[in-house]
Amino acid sequence: MLERIGISLEDDLLAQFDRLIDEKGYVNRSEAIRDLIRDALVQREWSRASGTEERVAVVALVYDHDASSLAQKLAHIQHENHKAVVSALHVHMDPHNCLEVLVLRGRAREVISMGEGLVSTKGVKFGRLLPATTGQALR
Amino acid sequence: MLERIGISLEDDLLAQFDRLIDEKGYVNRSEAIRDLIRDALVQREWSRASGTEERVAVVALVYDHDASSLAQKLAHIQHENHKAVVSALHVHMDPHNCLEVLVLRGRAREVISMGEGLVSTKGVKFGRLLPATTGQALR
Amino acid sequence: MLERIGISLEDDLLAQFDRLIDEKGYVNRSEAIRDLIRDALVQREWSRASGTEERVAVVALVYDHDASSLAQKLAHIQHENHKAVVSALHVHMDPHNCLEVLVLRGRAREVISMGEGLVSTKGVKFGRLLPATTGQALR
Amino acid sequence: MLERIGISLEDDLLAQFDRLIDEKGYVNRSEAIRDLIRDALVQREWSRASGTEERVAVVALVYDHDASSLAQKLAHIQHENHKAVVSALHVHMDPHNCLEVLVLRGRAREVISMGEGLVSTKGVKFGRLLPATTGQALR
Repeated sequence: MLERIGISLEDDLLAQFDRLIDEKGYVNRSEAIRDLIRDALVQREWSRASGTEERVAVVALVYDHDASSLAQKLAHIQHENHKAVVSALHVHMDPHNCLEVLVLRGRAREVISMGEGLVSTKGVKFGRLLPATTGQALR
Repeated sequence: MLERIGISLEDDLLAQFDRLIDEKGYVNRSEAIRDLIRDALVQREWSRASGTEERVAVVALVYDHDASSLAQKLAHIQHENHKAVVSALHVHMDPHNCLEVLVLRGRAREVISMGEGLVSTKGVKFGRLLPATTGQALR
Repeated sequence: MLERIGISLEDDLLAQFDRLIDEKGYVNRSEAIRDLIRDALVQREWSRASGTEERVAVVALVYDHDASSLAQKLAHIQHENHKAVVSALHVHMDPHNCLEVLVLRGRAREVISMGEGLVSTKGVKFGRLLPATTGQALR
Repeated sequence: MLERIGISLEDDLLAQFDRLIDEKGYVNRSEAIRDLIRDALVQREWSRASGTEERVAVVALVYDHDASSLAQKLAHIQHENHKAVVSALHVHMDPHNCLEVLVLRGRAREVISMGEGLVSTKGVKFGRLLPATTGQALR
């Protein structure tokens, strides 16, 4: 059953949103917002997995390797549960900045807690926890 | 200036959304939807960069390496513009499934077009293009 | 107890070897050859490990990803024993050539047999199996 | 033209060497020693490249990430010449030990000097500089 709700937002934001949904080919705002909500729910579903299910995640971090003890903090978080870190790809962006991409695999609780811990470490300039999959359940 | 719009959605979806915004501590639906819209705009802004700006992206792909010529197609896409692929991390999930995480860096147009091409290749079970950054403009 | 043996070699090769040992600061040919022999023995010792000991190895492969079904053959060898492949780093050297660096970890027998299988696959232009270590026994 | 030289070595070492060349199927000691010498010359040839030729190398390092400032020293060496480090694959071996595999590409002088600097950093338990290739000159 459809319900109708009202939401308020800045006219600027609305104008930009209208351009976006036009570009993406949505027929109306409701459809576009439903898609945004569904994506948010999928992401939340993933991160609420019961603690012992297997989960795979990709974590991307950008940070300054010179920043006082930051690299060491990130290494500590990873080693605390080193079996959940399949491996990490490290790219030197410039003389200071690093992009580190980690593949995590393990119990949901451990993967999510490590991923969120890394992303939220003070000093990390950019951090994302991307839910992934082993592919076993797909198709 | 605030505008008010009406959107319609399934009652089920609405109920789940209400639980989500409650968990996340939003004070009302409008604020939560504004955040979803802002995230979507950031992502679109990134992918609309003028063609020659530098962009960094992380691409995650899950696929079956046995799938007829899929791995070869993915390798072709990467080599067509090999300078934009910094490197790729490959993890064997099980006897069939692979997770491949690529770091792309180059002109916006090339990075986005390669990323979208990889993610949308037929047979890829799971694909995500995650906008990232060199970190230079941050802080 | 010291033994003395005679070996014969091309005068060219001998001249180059003499320059090499001079550069490296060896006091005589015997010492230099003993070192070469020791290295070869260490490598053989490693690869003769009883089948169930844990071993770590780094494998480097350079190949043309267009070469008929070569990439697929290499992927098959890896997936046959996917748990021994921690992960692989893939770098696109140019439009055709790839450098793939794999970290293998598992039972000696499996790690060595997979490593040697990959290195000796027909079409691989450059292949090396580098014995490594977990570091646990060191220091 | 063949020359004949005499070398002296411990009887133990000779006995092990004789077993090794027997296993490997060499017809005599001279042939086996010539192969060891050729390998050493190839390695030296590679590392004596004129300073501006392009070189590719794989560096493998095992170290304890807790060791006082070691990880930071290794990061500094890499960032000093960050363009020569294509990327690094990092594997957590256990709560303390890391295996880091780097792909270096750049001017011979820079690649070799960085590779040797990393391998010889105090505290690195295991370090190897493996000369590799772009594959362009092969076949």
